[in-house]
Amino acid sequence: MQYRAEVTIELKPGMLDPEGTTIRRALEHLGYHTNELRTSKRYIIDLEEESAEMAEQKVDEMCQKLIANPIIHNYTIEMREA
Amino acid sequence: MQYRAEVTIELKPGMLDPEGTTIRRALEHLGYHTNELRTSKRYIIDLEEESAEMAEQKVDEMCQKLIANPIIHNYTIEMREA
Repeated sequence: MQYRAEVTIELKPGMLDPEGTTIRRALEHLGYHTNELRTSKRYIIDLEEESAEMAEQKVDEMCQKLIANPIIHNYTIEMREA
Repeated sequence: MQYRAEVTIELKPGMLDPEGTTIRRALEHLGYHTNELRTSKRYIIDLEEESAEMAEQKVDEMCQKLIANPIIHNYTIEMREA
């Protein structure tokens, strides 16, 4: 079966987000006031597995081994048939 | 009113995604086969505006002026009361 995983990697609460801070400051200079701006990363992964459970397990392993840094990131996986 | 915008910036279809290709190749070396892997960026923006329409217009301007590159990116804005 073909599955599509949508993986969102975000900084854990309390972690500094220098990219977000920089963009927020740049927007301020352009005249746009924001109260907060946080960045995160999204990966769309297409893969073939026998079941949704297997696919989710594989993507979870990918996150732990390569895509996310468990010390600073939280991640969520949304899986659907593609 | 307080609003929270969720902005997703992705590469236009057909644009090369070298980051995605590199991650896909690295996963392959770790024994994880994927059919495709695309990356995108997400911004959570908190702002105060009089109405949801005003907030959406402001965030759209931010995207056009700073956050997205209209030549290579598509972007979507999801707005909700915070």
